[in-house]
Amino acid sequence: MQDSILTNIVTPQYARFDTPLYLKSGAVLDSYELVYETYGELNAARSNAVLICHALSGNHHVAGSYADNPKNLGWWDNMIGPDKPIDTHKFFVVGVNNLGGCHGSTGPASINAKTGKHYGADFPVVTVEDWVETQVRLADYLGIDHFAAVMGGSLGGMQAMRWTLDFPERVRHALVIAAAAKLTAQNIAFNDVARQAIITDQDFHGGDYYSHGVVPRRGLRLARMLGHITYLSDDSMAAKFGRELRNGTYAFGFDVEFEIESYLRYQGDKFADQFDANSYLLMTKALDYFDPAHEHNGDLSAAFRAVTANFLVLSFTSDWRFSPERSRTIIKALLDNELNVSYAEITSSHGHDSFLMEDRHYHQLVRAYMDNIVT
Amino acid sequence: MQDSILTNIVTPQYARFDTPLYLKSGAVLDSYELVYETYGELNAARSNAVLICHALSGNHHVAGSYADNPKNLGWWDNMIGPDKPIDTHKFFVVGVNNLGGCHGSTGPASINAKTGKHYGADFPVVTVEDWVETQVRLADYLGIDHFAAVMGGSLGGMQAMRWTLDFPERVRHALVIAAAAKLTAQNIAFNDVARQAIITDQDFHGGDYYSHGVVPRRGLRLARMLGHITYLSDDSMAAKFGRELRNGTYAFGFDVEFEIESYLRYQGDKFADQFDANSYLLMTKALDYFDPAHEHNGDLSAAFRAVTANFLVLSFTSDWRFSPERSRTIIKALLDNELNVSYAEITSSHGHDSFLMEDRHYHQLVRAYMDNIVT
Repeated sequence: MQDSILTNIVTPQYARFDTPLYLKSGAVLDSYELVYETYGELNAARSNAVLICHALSGNHHVAGSYADNPKNLGWWDNMIGPDKPIDTHKFFVVGVNNLGGCHGSTGPASINAKTGKHYGADFPVVTVEDWVETQVRLADYLGIDHFAAVMGGSLGGMQAMRWTLDFPERVRHALVIAAAAKLTAQNIAFNDVARQAIITDQDFHGGDYYSHGVVPRRGLRLARMLGHITYLSDDSMAAKFGRELRNGTYAFGFDVEFEIESYLRYQGDKFADQFDANSYLLMTKALDYFDPAHEHNGDLSAAFRAVTANFLVLSFTSDWRFSPERSRTIIKALLDNELNVSYAEITSSHGHDSFLMEDRHYHQLVRAYMDNIVT
Repeated sequence: MQDSILTNIVTPQYARFDTPLYLKSGAVLDSYELVYETYGELNAARSNAVLICHALSGNHHVAGSYADNPKNLGWWDNMIGPDKPIDTHKFFVVGVNNLGGCHGSTGPASINAKTGKHYGADFPVVTVEDWVETQVRLADYLGIDHFAAVMGGSLGGMQAMRWTLDFPERVRHALVIAAAAKLTAQNIAFNDVARQAIITDQDFHGGDYYSHGVVPRRGLRLARMLGHITYLSDDSMAAKFGRELRNGTYAFGFDVEFEIESYLRYQGDKFADQFDANSYLLMTKALDYFDPAHEHNGDLSAAFRAVTANFLVLSFTSDWRFSPERSRTIIKALLDNELNVSYAEITSSHGHDSFLMEDRHYHQLVRAYMDNIVT
């Protein structure tokens, strides 16, 4: 247990990159910094590294806690750590905050060395491909030739997929959880409403709100409230909140009346206090653009032709954002290429958020898959 | 055909009510006006009247067009008119704009005679029960003792249900289409995000924006964009828009990029130009509060105990806002009370909006049901 406690304390680290990064959009970033954390030890053969890719609002702090803030647990701490499904006795786990984020890696809220001002609207749009490129550079920096596994849920799962496409020789296993091979029109529609909420906020100032001393709080709050609805299932909301009234009776007004309103507004407020609106815009755009089949006339199987990785693909029954059907589309493309793939559709009532929840069957599957990886 | 053309021209009419209206909230409206339209002729026995109740953004103009604006067709013109499923050769159809609306009936944008100013935030919250009460008064005004049928889709269907509960002796048939016996937590959540978008718009001014010469356009636009997503099905959006790009290639920016974004923003803009934000708030609240089982400890069957009407209940397979399951809950309560009910689940890909669409099977069912009503 002593070991477990010790390895649970983690410290964010920074890596600076001064080689120009050519982005998918055509823009170039001359230099940037990434914040990352590591858990466990890289073995002598450098063959036990696992990269965890984060989703929309995630970051590098995937597990453990900080010495000076023990309550700040990583967002996937139930999955990663000593004796956990991603066992840090065996694996060297890397968490990284993606470029464009707002938790330490260079993003719109960072100071642009060229101007001495916040990037703001000047920060370029980044794609999943761009992120994978930066993650490869981080791997080089850490002396990791290849990852035993790249893993992520939702947008994180898309990055895991992209790794297998763009750097097949550098990833042996991909764990793609609650993800999709592309967004549907409905997915894009929800993202666009969220973006429009931010962009039309009078405090947005075309993305350069930093210099105005304000933040587009109202818009970001709305974006998060809306997001939350899509992360939960209708059933889980019904079970958790139903039509429960905050004060027992109808108030016939516009303050919080139903418990679900209280919950959503609280989530929106909390998020608006801690996340950067420009980063939120960038993350949703990365989601929209992800579509590996796009470069192959819509043929996802063709997109996976050069892939060599083995896959664990997981979906959740109540996830209506990226439903099991979306995972089966990925499976089909993998099987068309005679790739090794394990797939499970996990019964869960928690909707898209299921991938973050502690569920016995889910965690057993990940554990079994990871146990079988030779390092 | 001459007859058909003639009866297609309609004129809005106004009815003023000066008897105080005691609302569910405890508020009292001393007087108010309702705008309504009628189609066809009331027969000598006054037994052929059909009331059409509108949904969130609907109004009294349910069919036909105006002499001075022939292109302004009623929102349910495919359903109502000469030789249509609700045949105005047989029936005398009444459309009414609900109290609190913004198309002619007294609402938040109206001038309050007591103050000489717009009601604004002073306009009371109205419920489905309140609307039914005002509709009963309109029926009295028109000399209609009972309706052959009360009919509506979505929130309109809730009004039809409420009629059968509150005035069983005054409604012989209820046509309840794409409705639900109450909102779920998810339904309320979507409504609350829409309301918060409006209320936190800097131009809202606590509901009294009229006197500031502005409207909370950004908020109302967002509310409508969001609403639209829930009216359509994932499949219909995929079929209509998919991932089609507006200009063929990725722009890597925040202007309209995918066709679905263009569509949603257009719908939002159009709506924000013509609807009153306070009315939108009221309509969503009426939806939230609707819950006939609430007064019966959640027992919907008990709520329907005094009902005598016959029912046609219709749902649509791709409607995820008020899914077929929600209609079956209504059916169960009706059958528990040994009421006559016809039910059909109509195959349609158009989501919640299906109830407004022209569909052969759907219209045939309504036609057959209406043909059997003795007037």
